Amino acid sequence: MSYIDIPDEVREVFKLWRPTPLVRARRLEKALGTPARIYYKYEGTSPAGSHKPNTAVPQAYFNKVEGVKKLTTETGAGQWGSALAFATCLLDMECEVWQVRASYDAKPYRKTIMQTWGATLHPSPSPLTASGRAILEKDPTSPGSLGMAISEAVEVAAADPNARYALGSVLNHVLLHQTIIGEEALLQLAKIGEKPDVVVACTGGGSNFGGLTFPILREKMAGKMNPVIRAVEPAACPSLTKGKYCYDYGDTAGLTPLVKMHTLGHNFVPDPIHAGGLRYHGMAPLVSHIYELGLIEAISIPQKECFDAAIAFARTEGIVPAPEPTHALAAAVREALLCKETGESKCILTALCGHGHFDMASYEKYLSGEMQDLEYPEEKVAAALKDLPVVE
Amino acid sequence: MSYIDIPDEVREVFKLWRPTPLVRARRLEKALGTPARIYYKYEGTSPAGSHKPNTAVPQAYFNKVEGVKKLTTETGAGQWGSALAFATCLLDMECEVWQVRASYDAKPYRKTIMQTWGATLHPSPSPLTASGRAILEKDPTSPGSLGMAISEAVEVAAADPNARYALGSVLNHVLLHQTIIGEEALLQLAKIGEKPDVVVACTGGGSNFGGLTFPILREKMAGKMNPVIRAVEPAACPSLTKGKYCYDYGDTAGLTPLVKMHTLGHNFVPDPIHAGGLRYHGMAPLVSHIYELGLIEAISIPQKECFDAAIAFARTEGIVPAPEPTHALAAAVREALLCKETGESKCILTALCGHGHFDMASYEKYLSGEMQDLEYPEEKVAAALKDLPVVE
Repeated sequence: MSYIDIPDEVREVFKLWRPTPLVRARRLEKALGTPARIYYKYEGTSPAGSHKPNTAVPQAYFNKVEGVKKLTTETGAGQWGSALAFATCLLDMECEVWQVRASYDAKPYRKTIMQTWGATLHPSPSPLTASGRAILEKDPTSPGSLGMAISEAVEVAAADPNARYALGSVLNHVLLHQTIIGEEALLQLAKIGEKPDVVVACTGGGSNFGGLTFPILREKMAGKMNPVIRAVEPAACPSLTKGKYCYDYGDTAGLTPLVKMHTLGHNFVPDPIHAGGLRYHGMAPLVSHIYELGLIEAISIPQKECFDAAIAFARTEGIVPAPEPTHALAAAVREALLCKETGESKCILTALCGHGHFDMASYEKYLSGEMQDLEYPEEKVAAALKDLPVVE
Repeated sequence: MSYIDIPDEVREVFKLWRPTPLVRARRLEKALGTPARIYYKYEGTSPAGSHKPNTAVPQAYFNKVEGVKKLTTETGAGQWGSALAFATCLLDMECEVWQVRASYDAKPYRKTIMQTWGATLHPSPSPLTASGRAILEKDPTSPGSLGMAISEAVEVAAADPNARYALGSVLNHVLLHQTIIGEEALLQLAKIGEKPDVVVACTGGGSNFGGLTFPILREKMAGKMNPVIRAVEPAACPSLTKGKYCYDYGDTAGLTPLVKMHTLGHNFVPDPIHAGGLRYHGMAPLVSHIYELGLIEAISIPQKECFDAAIAFARTEGIVPAPEPTHALAAAVREALLCKETGESKCILTALCGHGHFDMASYEKYLSGEMQDLEYPEEKVAAALKDLPVVE
């Protein structure tokens, strides 16, 4: 096994919040009455509030070393845009972010925190790019999507020799950067003599899931532990459990290279669930690959069950989770309640990949009883899958 | 010197985020070009996002031991209400919060996070109490104030044998609880062989200031170090630097015991500066006392200079500060720039008592150029001081 050293300049920034805590959720265990031991690795201690800076900082650093002056990107929920704004700011680079219009309007504070770190923000679709203009011509009130915003950010970077595009998930190098989560968790578990029996992590593009589970999968394949590893996705956007495994574009306009992955079709626009960070049509090729090999399991959970778990967690453990990791918490609660039935004292490991400080509008919807579950949109997916590229 | 042991039940909760990090602000030092060494103790890692849980948790715990079922309180910016909602939730108690109307309307997300932890919220002044009704009769659109909200929370607790009122600052026991900040900082500084030359901390009611500086003052009085200790308050609400040192009420209605402190008058309603947590007419009696003895210095700073420092800090250190500690940061920057002139390499210590995730509207005002400095309201204070209670 070989490692790539983390550059000193990246470590200097990571010092601010890494290593992140691995916490045993004793009060949640007690409230559930489960004999299971639940551990969560908490990534919300980063200044941007999620695991995303784990890849934003090295991406900014390696680009800077190559002489790049500016990074462009997209953001949906705002976690990734915030992370890249934070990273480029600390490394004295420029940052230009296309934020999905629906999120740009609904979450003005996400916009402001990115601007606080000096980033330039645009709602997407925007009139600044050919792909944005094409979408606006068809639908001037388009709420946007991650796929559209990627097209715009890629287009601008491609035309500017001093700029590069940075992606916050899906790709191999992103998942590599995120394995710091799982590597730290393994060291922390070893310190207290624990080995996980079940590992659950939410997955949108796959970086949080891959980051936590790949190092654990390595240990499993080496015969050192034998946990079940389970990906959890939203019922309304279930690329792993319902998507097709084939070549597709990473963006709406088809500007990216083709990627072999589980996809709901690059033209699929997911319904506006609260976990904006999981609203992506595709899945990391590495995660897709190991799912096809049967090395991991996958399930999907509707959002109300996720927020049930979020409230139970906040009221016992104290931390208010972002909507994305509530999927992992709901899966952990399911497993813990199963242990209660069987009497098994399993060790459950999960990743709490961000806090919900910028997602309180979602909690308000839940607490007021207005939150609805969104069904799997079978017809929309079927229509989008018709537009898959033909690969010969 | 004698210590009071922290109960195990309180430690169990503190474990989630304590000890908090002491960080050297190397990137800020470099940006300022100062030979000074700047350290900040960061309290924003608590789930409620500030230093307030340091006293909320022990207050809830000791009340619970005495059989109290419910705590009532007021909140302005929302930091204290959030902290008490968090603490009571984890200790299975009820919590009822009167939030200053202006803040209740302007910061809906603060309300939601308190509700997420199970607290009951009311805007203040409210029709639920005699003091609230009296204020509403005079002014049905009153924006409220901390003093008014205290009156309401005290009134409700006084009438309910199962309830007690909890205050988040000012009083001796609160400052005692907060000394965990300074005690930890001393241990952390000793580890790296540092002794502070200058300690700056923001002060509203005095709990953050007392928490950081009292243990350091003890060391100074024992001759073990010799730092200048400086309180920093907002120019628009300068109780230490402009207030009268005399007996006054802690609340607007005059329900609390009389307290000897620096006060701008219990009827003084501070202008709506962004640092809502510093909008209080009085000052902790212990802080007032040592200021009168000449053991500490005090200055006041207008809010635009504070946000200048906040942006400089966020863009170098990465953390976005709450508006309250931006006062301490501005004072630290002043001191660091003085060192640049004199060439002195002083050790500057400050407390970053909370993050600004719920204060992005203030950053938006600053970044858009709309933020105004508010002058010291001399006439309003003179009028309020006429209503001081007569003590014989």
